[in-house]
Amino acid sequence: MNENIEMEQQFDLLRQLLHADKMNEFREMFLEWHLYEQGQFYFTLDEKERLRLYTYLSPKETADMFDVIEEDHEDMKDYLSEMAPRYVADMLSEMYADNAADILNQLDKEEALKYLSLMTSENVNRIKVLIGYEDKTAGAIMTTEYVSIVANQTIRSALNLLRKKATQAEIIYYIYVVDSHNHLEGIISLRDLLLNREDMLISEMMEERVISVDVTEDQEDVAKTIRDYDFLAVPVVNSRKELLGIITVDDIIDVIDDEAASDYSGLAGVDVEAIAETPLKASIKRLPWLITLLFLGMSTATLISHYEVLINEASILAVFISLITGTAGNAGTQSLAVAVRKLAISDDKDMSFAKLIISEVLTGLITGCVTGLVIFIVVGFWKNNFILGFVIGIAMLCAITVANLAGSFIPILMEKIGFDPAVASGPFITTLSDLTSVLIYFNIASLFMGFFIGT
Amino acid sequence: MNENIEMEQQFDLLRQLLHADKMNEFREMFLEWHLYEQGQFYFTLDEKERLRLYTYLSPKETADMFDVIEEDHEDMKDYLSEMAPRYVADMLSEMYADNAADILNQLDKEEALKYLSLMTSENVNRIKVLIGYEDKTAGAIMTTEYVSIVANQTIRSALNLLRKKATQAEIIYYIYVVDSHNHLEGIISLRDLLLNREDMLISEMMEERVISVDVTEDQEDVAKTIRDYDFLAVPVVNSRKELLGIITVDDIIDVIDDEAASDYSGLAGVDVEAIAETPLKASIKRLPWLITLLFLGMSTATLISHYEVLINEASILAVFISLITGTAGNAGTQSLAVAVRKLAISDDKDMSFAKLIISEVLTGLITGCVTGLVIFIVVGFWKNNFILGFVIGIAMLCAITVANLAGSFIPILMEKIGFDPAVASGPFITTLSDLTSVLIYFNIASLFMGFFIGT
Repeated sequence: MNENIEMEQQFDLLRQLLHADKMNEFREMFLEWHLYEQGQFYFTLDEKERLRLYTYLSPKETADMFDVIEEDHEDMKDYLSEMAPRYVADMLSEMYADNAADILNQLDKEEALKYLSLMTSENVNRIKVLIGYEDKTAGAIMTTEYVSIVANQTIRSALNLLRKKATQAEIIYYIYVVDSHNHLEGIISLRDLLLNREDMLISEMMEERVISVDVTEDQEDVAKTIRDYDFLAVPVVNSRKELLGIITVDDIIDVIDDEAASDYSGLAGVDVEAIAETPLKASIKRLPWLITLLFLGMSTATLISHYEVLINEASILAVFISLITGTAGNAGTQSLAVAVRKLAISDDKDMSFAKLIISEVLTGLITGCVTGLVIFIVVGFWKNNFILGFVIGIAMLCAITVANLAGSFIPILMEKIGFDPAVASGPFITTLSDLTSVLIYFNIASLFMGFFIGT
Repeated sequence: MNENIEMEQQFDLLRQLLHADKMNEFREMFLEWHLYEQGQFYFTLDEKERLRLYTYLSPKETADMFDVIEEDHEDMKDYLSEMAPRYVADMLSEMYADNAADILNQLDKEEALKYLSLMTSENVNRIKVLIGYEDKTAGAIMTTEYVSIVANQTIRSALNLLRKKATQAEIIYYIYVVDSHNHLEGIISLRDLLLNREDMLISEMMEERVISVDVTEDQEDVAKTIRDYDFLAVPVVNSRKELLGIITVDDIIDVIDDEAASDYSGLAGVDVEAIAETPLKASIKRLPWLITLLFLGMSTATLISHYEVLINEASILAVFISLITGTAGNAGTQSLAVAVRKLAISDDKDMSFAKLIISEVLTGLITGCVTGLVIFIVVGFWKNNFILGFVIGIAMLCAITVANLAGSFIPILMEKIGFDPAVASGPFITTLSDLTSVLIYFNIASLFMGFFIGT
């Protein structure tokens, strides 16, 4: 809290230096900050202020800042269009290749080509190999700035090489050992280099069991590997086991964050990532779901409409519609969340789907029995009508069981046909279970029709 | 896929070696594996097999494996009780202090003391300082195994110290600079040590602006710091700025995972982390929510019950109950998810709550108008009754707006009174919005009573 206030005061001071055009004082203060803080300050500036900032900072200095902030901000495009093309090209050349590729991927092809044409062929190649990998795969999030060596050299020469490469490499704490055709042969940590005699050969001490990920692998699986093995980075290879790049833990944290947000969004039927938006924009994003579900809800209304005669004769039935649909919807949402999670963390992609569904249905039967029994007693005493209580209780049991079936079956179905099961939303399940619950409820009530007429 | 099968075959082979009591062959194969894989194998063993494994492995070897797997498994307690107390004590001594403390925290006090009494006082102290910090704070997840130095020495002597400490330290890529009273003065990365002349003084090149976290800070805020700054570790200090420990990125990934799972669980009203459980156990966990919400749902039923006369006279009203409650519930769930997320990512703990609520209510008004208009037209034509359509449409508009109000207000209220807003569940909001929606619906319908009688 205190730190935040202090930071804001410093932001103000810095802004004053910018306005007074005191470049040297500004640079002295600004460059002392951590890159993330520089980025936070940058985001508070208006266009005029940013234009002056670009004249204060070298492309390299802006690049360093952009390396840290580009992950947090989807739209770097607008910032680029403010800068001189030459400045952008120099900045992209100085950025880590994976981040530069991310930004270029956001641009129109024409615009990207404009910047690439201003860069040296070496830099173009370095970045170009990272463009075009399918989104959300290992290739899309890897970087090529790693340190690799061949096995038949000493620790001393490896350390010298490391010193040479240390400024460019994104991470220097793992060194990858490759053969002359760039096949990944081993790995060695900087810790091991420091701990052993300098004349030892790399081949003698490298770890030959290297855990790597395939370049086409889903980013979620890469995240799982880094998390399980407690790695700081993991090498990326193609099908011929050639080393293509590495993925570092900071990028994996962003993947985990994004995936968690998207699971959460899926469950709620709304994109929670789009934060600083107006009510109008938010409405435009939420309405498709709401209207789609409204029409699904219309089916439920149509169904109830068929039973209007029944309601006319026993209006008491209407009293319990929302109780049954609501409770079944709650149970279905629980099933959905558990199923989505089980699908996400399961290593075995062929895990027994049948087993998961059976388990959820059994859970539905048990919770349904208990809930049904409770409502049987409550309604029986409240309305002094145990037959009505029985109807509500049985309907509740069936509705919950079916909701659990739907809640587990639908994400599994989506996984089977190649969709992300996390997209199956809670609102969809509750609206669907409204339909099945009403169907069950009125069918059971019809059977006991005689008892309600006139109540 | 292929790798999984291969791994299973290797597991089988290893198990055979264990059964045939071929210790040397077993050790040769087992110790070549990555610690995480050793752990996965360990989890497949039964008690008899594990008991033999302990005789094969030194406490240090088991400790290394436990360091990697303890995060993934809540209940290490049972495994410890299988081992000889001496073996446990030795193993805990060899583990990283934070992980050993985590395990000791799971034990009964008596049992923990039994093991501690068998350890050297140095090891006891190392672990003991980590026990007793409040759960989910920086103190609870930090480790004391970092490398610290004083400023007035050369890089050469720092590197020598590093070599000495490298085997114990959990991370050697940051070196923390402290004064004689252990106040944190600066930080230096191993990369910087390698890049500069060996006779340079630490004080000349250390970074003095150190980002640190307070020992009482919430683990989610620590995660945010590490994520934003792309750190591999962050130092932990007390209010006097004395260095107490560090938190490494691998522990932060577990924090992010846990928090995401708990947010997701909250939204669904079910603990999705408890995975390998029977339907009976699952039911016992889910029932409290279901039954609580059942009674909240009973209020809705009671409310409808008050309007039974109205329904008796215009049974068409019953047809649209679930449509209105369902749609309002969906909108409320969207609001809830957005509000919880905004509260979670906001740096400014005093962010304008009023602004968030107003934004959600405005969004409710807009989505409510559109949804209301759609349903007005649909119902108007369907039932050839535009007054009915008007009632449903207006009720929809009001119900959605109120649901958005509840969906944003309730998590804010929870945050205000010191609860985790993520606990506010979707099922709770939908059930609550059932109640408000029904109230709104029947009140509006009452106003137009005259038009429905007999329809």
